[in-house]
Amino acid sequence: MRDFAAGLDWLSLNTITLDRQGGLKAIVDAALGAGIRALSVWRHQVKDLGIAQAARLLRDAGITLTGYCRGGMMTADAVHRSAAREDNRRALDEAAALGAPALVIVPGGLPQFSRPGSAASKDIAGARAMVAEELAELLRHARPLGIPLALEPLHPMLCADRGCISTLGQALDICDELDPDAQGELGVTLDVYHCWWDPQLSAQIERAGPRRLLVFQVCDWLVPTTHLLNDRGMMGDGIIDIPLIRGWMEAAGFAGHVEVEIFSDSWWARPAAEVLETCVERYRCRV
Amino acid sequence: MRDFAAGLDWLSLNTITLDRQGGLKAIVDAALGAGIRALSVWRHQVKDLGIAQAARLLRDAGITLTGYCRGGMMTADAVHRSAAREDNRRALDEAAALGAPALVIVPGGLPQFSRPGSAASKDIAGARAMVAEELAELLRHARPLGIPLALEPLHPMLCADRGCISTLGQALDICDELDPDAQGELGVTLDVYHCWWDPQLSAQIERAGPRRLLVFQVCDWLVPTTHLLNDRGMMGDGIIDIPLIRGWMEAAGFAGHVEVEIFSDSWWARPAAEVLETCVERYRCRV
Repeated sequence: MRDFAAGLDWLSLNTITLDRQGGLKAIVDAALGAGIRALSVWRHQVKDLGIAQAARLLRDAGITLTGYCRGGMMTADAVHRSAAREDNRRALDEAAALGAPALVIVPGGLPQFSRPGSAASKDIAGARAMVAEELAELLRHARPLGIPLALEPLHPMLCADRGCISTLGQALDICDELDPDAQGELGVTLDVYHCWWDPQLSAQIERAGPRRLLVFQVCDWLVPTTHLLNDRGMMGDGIIDIPLIRGWMEAAGFAGHVEVEIFSDSWWARPAAEVLETCVERYRCRV
Repeated sequence: MRDFAAGLDWLSLNTITLDRQGGLKAIVDAALGAGIRALSVWRHQVKDLGIAQAARLLRDAGITLTGYCRGGMMTADAVHRSAAREDNRRALDEAAALGAPALVIVPGGLPQFSRPGSAASKDIAGARAMVAEELAELLRHARPLGIPLALEPLHPMLCADRGCISTLGQALDICDELDPDAQGELGVTLDVYHCWWDPQLSAQIERAGPRRLLVFQVCDWLVPTTHLLNDRGMMGDGIIDIPLIRGWMEAAGFAGHVEVEIFSDSWWARPAAEVLETCVERYRCRV
């Protein structure tokens, strides 16, 4: 395994981690101040600044992008489906303008939650089939742009409303169906928070291999967890054996950045410098 | 599928659903008042009354038992392991005294949460192996008593602290290992709340068959869910396609009761009669 104690070469900050501390400019400044030179950025932060200005900011600061968050929410009823498709095509265009290496796809759950206004449904198998259909459609736009799609399996507690692809195995089945030769068009985002509990995780990481393992995200699972979305922990504060999973990733050929992505009311309430100082410290010894 | 609109023959009330409305005597009275004649009872309620008195109460009221909740929490460090074993043997003895048809097993997560005081661990694979070991041990006590163990896969959001067996497939693997001839000693509790998201659910229910499908529990998944343990919904109020899953159960040969088990601060705050009236109405048309 790579030695993370020695330096910050493989540390990336997912900008949602500082989402309430400031806009993209402030986040870039804070990251550079903490010695972090790689980011994965979120659409709403880019939109606030304007795409051209955001691209210039990142380029001038010498930032390495490790992903663009996020496309998806592709499950919708017939009325809302074309709007969902257009939205995802715009996300791809933005990723291309920024020079991002992948678009993270959070696929959506049941249509009424992914695209509000859609007719209510309990058909989770239908939602899953729709994700595969919409990914096939989006790939036609992604290929000419050269932007890989990184499908993210989400924790089953988010299955109904945010992401109905619940395991790495399920995500890889879709990858194999739509991109059978693993040409780098379609892969996965693996977030330890969503996948740590999966008894198949090690086998599926090995199955995925370096051509499918596009984005790697870390945070921690707290006990107790008090909110299904916004109570994720800083690495080392919870019960996930993160080094074990990183070991599986590297044994499978993954050699990219590790993105710190923490949705947390608690960490959002602290000064950016304190958050990043802690991220850096934990990256060195708990990842 | 059996017609549930016609009568309450297959409705069982899991007594946790009225846990804050009264003790076992009050729950039995409320159930009978609502026309419900089958119960699955909880240990702490039995203990409050005393085992002999509880057995007499249930017998005199003509209650059919569909399970005893619960054994388990069998993951522990070396110091706490024998206490956990003794506790589970006592649960079996109580189940036998009551004439319960199965002991539901909630296996526990990491040792420090299942048996507080145990040394902290992040070894979820180790916890899973320990569950299989402890089930093998407990079976030696269960066999002579003729009480089947009904291992319950729990939702992955409860993996760390309550149950590290996360899918029906995982539970069945353990059953096949410890009771290869499916002699009725070891089977599963299937709760739609824990398993609805599992893409393998239908296939694994078919694999299980009638000799493994011992207990069937229903409630609903709410969106949003505001608490990981105590925000379960009344059948029909959430997004689980319960009739679809009951159809899979019956196609696989399950012909037992459907237990309503709702952990809910909201339903616990309402009068018992209102809760049971709603259970009965939803049982007829939403299960």
